[in-house]
Amino acid sequence: MLTATAMSIITLITDFGTRDGFVGAMKGVIARSTHTPVIDITHDVPRHDVAHAAWIVATACREFPKGTIHVVVVDPGVGGERTGVVVRAHDHYFIGPDNGVFAYVTEGHHEAWAIRFPRFMAPRVSPTFHGRDVFAIAARRLATGDEPNLAGPRVGLVGMLPWGVRQAGEGRVVHIDHFGNLVSDLPAGEAGTAVTVGGQTLAIASTYEDVDVGALVTYVGSAGTIEIAVREGRADHLLGVARGALVMPAREPSTLGPYR
Amino acid sequence: MLTATAMSIITLITDFGTRDGFVGAMKGVIARSTHTPVIDITHDVPRHDVAHAAWIVATACREFPKGTIHVVVVDPGVGGERTGVVVRAHDHYFIGPDNGVFAYVTEGHHEAWAIRFPRFMAPRVSPTFHGRDVFAIAARRLATGDEPNLAGPRVGLVGMLPWGVRQAGEGRVVHIDHFGNLVSDLPAGEAGTAVTVGGQTLAIASTYEDVDVGALVTYVGSAGTIEIAVREGRADHLLGVARGALVMPAREPSTLGPYR
Amino acid sequence: MLTATAMSIITLITDFGTRDGFVGAMKGVIARSTHTPVIDITHDVPRHDVAHAAWIVATACREFPKGTIHVVVVDPGVGGERTGVVVRAHDHYFIGPDNGVFAYVTEGHHEAWAIRFPRFMAPRVSPTFHGRDVFAIAARRLATGDEPNLAGPRVGLVGMLPWGVRQAGEGRVVHIDHFGNLVSDLPAGEAGTAVTVGGQTLAIASTYEDVDVGALVTYVGSAGTIEIAVREGRADHLLGVARGALVMPAREPSTLGPYR
Repeated sequence: MLTATAMSIITLITDFGTRDGFVGAMKGVIARSTHTPVIDITHDVPRHDVAHAAWIVATACREFPKGTIHVVVVDPGVGGERTGVVVRAHDHYFIGPDNGVFAYVTEGHHEAWAIRFPRFMAPRVSPTFHGRDVFAIAARRLATGDEPNLAGPRVGLVGMLPWGVRQAGEGRVVHIDHFGNLVSDLPAGEAGTAVTVGGQTLAIASTYEDVDVGALVTYVGSAGTIEIAVREGRADHLLGVARGALVMPAREPSTLGPYR
Repeated sequence: MLTATAMSIITLITDFGTRDGFVGAMKGVIARSTHTPVIDITHDVPRHDVAHAAWIVATACREFPKGTIHVVVVDPGVGGERTGVVVRAHDHYFIGPDNGVFAYVTEGHHEAWAIRFPRFMAPRVSPTFHGRDVFAIAARRLATGDEPNLAGPRVGLVGMLPWGVRQAGEGRVVHIDHFGNLVSDLPAGEAGTAVTVGGQTLAIASTYEDVDVGALVTYVGSAGTIEIAVREGRADHLLGVARGALVMPAREPSTLGPYR
Repeated sequence: MLTATAMSIITLITDFGTRDGFVGAMKGVIARSTHTPVIDITHDVPRHDVAHAAWIVATACREFPKGTIHVVVVDPGVGGERTGVVVRAHDHYFIGPDNGVFAYVTEGHHEAWAIRFPRFMAPRVSPTFHGRDVFAIAARRLATGDEPNLAGPRVGLVGMLPWGVRQAGEGRVVHIDHFGNLVSDLPAGEAGTAVTVGGQTLAIASTYEDVDVGALVTYVGSAGTIEIAVREGRADHLLGVARGALVMPAREPSTLGPYR
């Protein structure tokens, strides 16, 4: 049985931005009872963008060591009906609202507990700041040795992303990164030698340098899935497709680009 | 007597932004003589916005454990006449310019010392970068066990905010957060069941979900004071009020919203 | 011989921004094998702006203690021909692409090794994310005691900045900071009492307060070089000069401002 210990790490993913004191308040709450290192993953998730957060959880959190506690506060329903949860998956802990932020990371085996017992909350819980009054407290409880069943009863997760669960043999644009690259969830192994997206068929290249500056390039991204970029440009602007757009293995090889 | 020790924490609040090396230089100076953890609260205070910094000091710093050393560098008068100070209040230390950034946190009992002795400065002090050459040095002195009277003589603080000290029974918009929410300094206990702001009377609700999307909602915020938001929108844009605007308990109950 | 140890520090300078999981992934990779503290210098280098990164390396990194490991990932050529390197200079380590980011910090004595051996890389290296799969791995190798010659063979650095190496007696605008200040590489000791830039001759003042609000002010900046600012304004907008513009000692004293 995995137990987080005083040697574990706490990471933070929020949409709080960095202009205010919200993130600092969470760090202060954690520091009040543990020296566990707190690592910022990002506080610049676009406001209320659950799918953006879910992709970061899927790709960044997995690089951390087993036992890491990831706190994810992108929570448009704070103060309402959604359930705050502790999730255990891939030998990591995840803490946040059950609204889809854990959709990718819980595709396989996982366990979840509702955060319901007072031990995992501040004595007074602000209806608008569960990051400080619930999730940071829960993180320090796990970091100091509590088992997750001290948070509350076992629950099944209900949060989903707009595009549901991926079907084998197809993918979607699930993330648009800082550089305007379109990141899909289509694994390289299912893509063959070319994909179609936004009405275009694009051959899969090895590196950016396989194409001219300003041209579209499709390649296996750092998450092991198909990505579409523009060399020294922005693919989101050029292709004009949004998240959720289908990325399908092409039936026939493209004539537009190099093969691997 | 409170003494900061090697187990304490140093936090940073600046308006340096994150594009340059200023924040890194401060962290380097601290790391040269102590392993004390350094925690970023924010570096995105709007340039020279003393009141913005003061609110973050008031709300985020208090969550940290006793003995924490908070370094606050929002300092339009750097190199000029204002005094750099070490402040002790609420069993925390605060280091920065005496220009109003400590206005809220020093409303009650506090002590202050001017930073004047060479021990609390670099051998050569740049006129434009006291964050590195004065305040970071002062922080590492306290973190490694110096008493604050080694910084310089006791002084009375003179820095103020534009709206001075709050009078009982009234409040003002003192902060506009990342989400466009208007944060006042009117404590919930003085607000009754409704407030007036910007010519409107608004009943105090429990949660965002008490109102429709796009509507104004007034509630007790995470600082324990009255806040005005727009559900899934920006109250600053909708109401058009600026910081300093009065937020007063309403004489008669509003007919515009739910009661608690 | 300098050896980084488990007590060293790792710093990060990237152009990854903070919206995605890239930085978090690098931190996770490092945390998997060492408790070495990781300190963010900046992730907001403008995309692919090698010169911007080089200036931050020159000015922020030197404040850290000897043995610090600085990871610099501003890497427009990732996946192509440029060489990833470990550099030792000024008793610090620097890790990143050999594309000019280390130009200033290697002006004096330094040594460099290509990162070529598998020990300094992930088992599978993504062509687009060497920050995670090469440079973060290299950092944790050094942090846990590896000598840099375990990375690969000694190499000479070839990366340069557009303006080459500075000649004695002249300088250039090499950085424009968050506040719009023009930062030159002209040392104070070579500037005399006035400089010419953008067709104007400007006397060197002591502090911002030597000039009126909105006026140009030239002074010795925090790096010990000449800077040009506008008091409570932006010098980049007012003067309209770009990086690379010459900043020369003036032949005759200016009549435009105060002397020191």
